[in-house]
Amino acid sequence: MTEKTAITPATHTAPPAKFSHGVRKGNILQVAGQVGFLPAVEGQPPTPAGPTLREQTLQTLANVKAVLEEGGATWDDVMMTRVYLTDVDHFAEMNAIYNTYFEDQGLGAPASARTTVYVGLPQGLLIEIDALAVLG
Amino acid sequence: MTEKTAITPATHTAPPAKFSHGVRKGNILQVAGQVGFLPAVEGQPPTPAGPTLREQTLQTLANVKAVLEEGGATWDDVMMTRVYLTDVDHFAEMNAIYNTYFEDQGLGAPASARTTVYVGLPQGLLIEIDALAVLG
Amino acid sequence: MTEKTAITPATHTAPPAKFSHGVRKGNILQVAGQVGFLPAVEGQPPTPAGPTLREQTLQTLANVKAVLEEGGATWDDVMMTRVYLTDVDHFAEMNAIYNTYFEDQGLGAPASARTTVYVGLPQGLLIEIDALAVLG
Repeated sequence: MTEKTAITPATHTAPPAKFSHGVRKGNILQVAGQVGFLPAVEGQPPTPAGPTLREQTLQTLANVKAVLEEGGATWDDVMMTRVYLTDVDHFAEMNAIYNTYFEDQGLGAPASARTTVYVGLPQGLLIEIDALAVLG
Repeated sequence: MTEKTAITPATHTAPPAKFSHGVRKGNILQVAGQVGFLPAVEGQPPTPAGPTLREQTLQTLANVKAVLEEGGATWDDVMMTRVYLTDVDHFAEMNAIYNTYFEDQGLGAPASARTTVYVGLPQGLLIEIDALAVLG
Repeated sequence: MTEKTAITPATHTAPPAKFSHGVRKGNILQVAGQVGFLPAVEGQPPTPAGPTLREQTLQTLANVKAVLEEGGATWDDVMMTRVYLTDVDHFAEMNAIYNTYFEDQGLGAPASARTTVYVGLPQGLLIEIDALAVLG
């Protein structure tokens, strides 16, 4: 029996419903959909890092990374990211930010697979990302 | 060699194409996108549980659970649910239904991760949910 | 320590960002979102197989299969496909194409699970598919 554990970075706002920011069981780690909320501040509602795609993308990636690290993983363990954007016109800019971000991470393994689609998101949010990791 | 098996609850309507409601291979179980269709009735087309988000959400969760159980899993084994809604204004109500549902399930493990996005669905359907489980 | 490897079929156009068309680690293989681009031609931009849903669906499935095979897997190993369409009215036609395609593949294992949702995609693209496989 392998235990399933919840992953809850101290920086994260409480999920708005009965789900975990991440869960790990054995060597599988699943990161829930993250958005560009700043680290939680007691007594304040979740606040996006800013109105721009750049601010939100970088904060979203930081939030995914925080869950990975809290669960004992790194970006190198990630098999798949799912990127949800609200506007097809954001694709090129998101890619540029994504590329620079991962160049800066100094990955030791190949980049993960990825799917990007265009959906609706709550008002003010421009991007959401989740990730599936398989630990070594 | 681990065998891949199809999971087909007796209550489920036939899939509209060549896919399985669920598959299991080793300790991985994947539940296909479920919607709020009532248990199948021979000779009748698939029928949603009702027009409301509440009726469809509860039926959808019951349908996911039926696949999990037919495959030898429970909600406790679920790592990730993907919730597809058609309207951002349904988020709060879906969360309330989702929370109550899972409180009633008496989970013995942490809640799964989750991603919720807003997409198009076939006429009359308000919610679709799929799930990835890792068995113990 | 299991190594994570990138899967890059020779036929594939370069990803538009820092991600892999597929990755494999241990017995898990993840195929990135594939679209209906024809095999890459040096010096030419990615070109869809054609404007129709049929052309793009078949090319997309061929592209997913190429990643699976390059990674040592087959359709029989696939647990889940995620099908992204842009128009609910394409569902029946996509299903017909999907069914015929898989009948022609001569599967030796049950069909994978599947989720189909309707999203936005870049101009000119009608379908995107990704896949998760668990090898035997």
